[in-house]
Amino acid sequence: MIIKCNKDNLINGLNIAQRATTSKSSNEIFECILIEATDKIILYASDNELAIKTEIDGEILNLGKFAINARLILDTIRKLPNELITITLKEKNIEITCKKSKITLFYINPDEFTFFNAFDKNNKKVFKQKHLKHLILKTIFSTSINENNKILTGELLTINNNKLKLTAMDGYRIALATVENNDNYEDVEIILPKKILYELSKLLSDDESKEIIMYNTYQQIIFEFEKTTIISRLISGEYFNINKLINNDYDIKIKVNNKEFQDAINRALIVTISTEQTPIILDITDNFTIYTNTTKGNVIEELDIIEKTGENIKIAFNPNYLLEALKVIDDEEITMYLTNENSPVFIKDDIESYFYIILPVKTR
Amino acid sequence: MIIKCNKDNLINGLNIAQRATTSKSSNEIFECILIEATDKIILYASDNELAIKTEIDGEILNLGKFAINARLILDTIRKLPNELITITLKEKNIEITCKKSKITLFYINPDEFTFFNAFDKNNKKVFKQKHLKHLILKTIFSTSINENNKILTGELLTINNNKLKLTAMDGYRIALATVENNDNYEDVEIILPKKILYELSKLLSDDESKEIIMYNTYQQIIFEFEKTTIISRLISGEYFNINKLINNDYDIKIKVNNKEFQDAINRALIVTISTEQTPIILDITDNFTIYTNTTKGNVIEELDIIEKTGENIKIAFNPNYLLEALKVIDDEEITMYLTNENSPVFIKDDIESYFYIILPVKTR
Repeated sequence: MIIKCNKDNLINGLNIAQRATTSKSSNEIFECILIEATDKIILYASDNELAIKTEIDGEILNLGKFAINARLILDTIRKLPNELITITLKEKNIEITCKKSKITLFYINPDEFTFFNAFDKNNKKVFKQKHLKHLILKTIFSTSINENNKILTGELLTINNNKLKLTAMDGYRIALATVENNDNYEDVEIILPKKILYELSKLLSDDESKEIIMYNTYQQIIFEFEKTTIISRLISGEYFNINKLINNDYDIKIKVNNKEFQDAINRALIVTISTEQTPIILDITDNFTIYTNTTKGNVIEELDIIEKTGENIKIAFNPNYLLEALKVIDDEEITMYLTNENSPVFIKDDIESYFYIILPVKTR
Repeated sequence: MIIKCNKDNLINGLNIAQRATTSKSSNEIFECILIEATDKIILYASDNELAIKTEIDGEILNLGKFAINARLILDTIRKLPNELITITLKEKNIEITCKKSKITLFYINPDEFTFFNAFDKNNKKVFKQKHLKHLILKTIFSTSINENNKILTGELLTINNNKLKLTAMDGYRIALATVENNDNYEDVEIILPKKILYELSKLLSDDESKEIIMYNTYQQIIFEFEKTTIISRLISGEYFNINKLINNDYDIKIKVNNKEFQDAINRALIVTISTEQTPIILDITDNFTIYTNTTKGNVIEELDIIEKTGENIKIAFNPNYLLEALKVIDDEEITMYLTNENSPVFIKDDIESYFYIILPVKTR
């Protein structure tokens, strides 16, 4: 195998493929990228749950394939000059030449590489990359980190009534984000692992014109975009039915400036003690006061009320749960819907493009 | 005590003072900044080896002083809006108010603060900040990290023949940097701890017009610049006499491009194994070849020779020692002076504004 590529193409491709490698496994093949020259130059990596395949431009002088540690090859290529790079597969090693540099590295047997079984590309659906990316960013922080309930470590992807929706929940809060999709696809309800969603959020573009194709079976999901294919196993099981939690019953509605609310919560965090999970208290009367009180000191913040209907309320929350939701809302003003001190807050816009449900904290 | 300052002044002052705090001590007062309002607002911090005092602009409504954890007060002030901040000393705590925020923090008894004894400000000398800063940056990496030989953990500062010079050495290499100083000061030879040099390199300006004043006794050194005073104990003892190591005897002189040399060494590092301290070999004939060979692979680099006199030589070095020196040399081309494979390399310019001596590594 002999291939010639320019540095930028090679770096871009390796950066994409290495997202499917993992250093957490004892199997060194999961840290590797397979580089294969057939009629195209393909980079492939897989950690047995997620797989990424991406194609790069270059000249193929001789066919072949090898596997190599992703960090080693990336480190090597990054340090080369911005010129044409030649990679030659020899009997026991690969030789990388570029201008006056000649670097010889040992490769790993490509036959150890395990590929996912290909499945028929059924159920084709097309979305805007930007839409999927933003649904992920608006919800992924609410997935559970507790591996005991595998389902909650992933997100529910649903297609229903021309709407594409992602749902994440961890037992203390729920995040939902929805976008209109013009095409009329049949209903879908699948649970995607957090890892593929995270990697997609990094790989997808904000460019309005760029699309992504999705195929799925009961066990697997495939996304294709540009020269890249990303495949993941799905999480099996049934997701919680949260429809009964989502209602429009509320007694109190209050609108504030999003940035000012975040700044005030951030200051309340000054005196919180991370090991004690100190809550912050929202005290809403004619004024909106946020306060917290610990052995480190106390913070009192006054927030301007833009609009308020309903009774007064005093309710406590984990400040980080509020902040994580507020941070991903692009709206300048946010509206909270409350019922009583033991019921969750709803933070949502009028068209419910985002919908956050956060349980309050009991104080004494 | 009541003071009013704008946020930027307060942040700048706290950032300077916190450089003398340390979290490595069990004494919490070393993590604190003392804030004192007399006729000025003074911030003070000290870790018992180094002390920094800095003055900030602001309005003093009431005199007083308190001490507070540096990270806590910095974190608090940073999170406030960019407006006038009022700090009020109460009986048991301090109250920080700014717009609609009121933050109360517990302070630490300022009487626990230990100050350095003031000494007479003798032996006044004035340098350009830029000069001192660059002498430090050109040498500090060659100080020893071995605390068993305290002297080598610091740097020798000498003034002699209107020249200001810093010397650092760690047993494997020596770094010297010299700058002309027009004033006619008496000779000085003192050993400064690395910490004050490091903090000065961060605090001093590159501005040609800015000056720094130095005072010293046998035990202490004081630097004054702008509104800041930085004081350190000196290291006692006698520094090694390196004059006999610095000579102009050499058999081989070779000039190469600095950037290309660094790039080639960086690529040689791809296959080095950090635990084995793999050397790189410079093989200089009519060609200049750099190579290294390990169980990870091998790298061969060809370097263009700009100028060469003398015999051929093959000599091995710790690649990091070469790189650390080359990185701080601003010259586009560097010249190496060599004698034989067991003698050190000299890297210096014609006026010896920098002079690096690096011992070779024995290979087998």
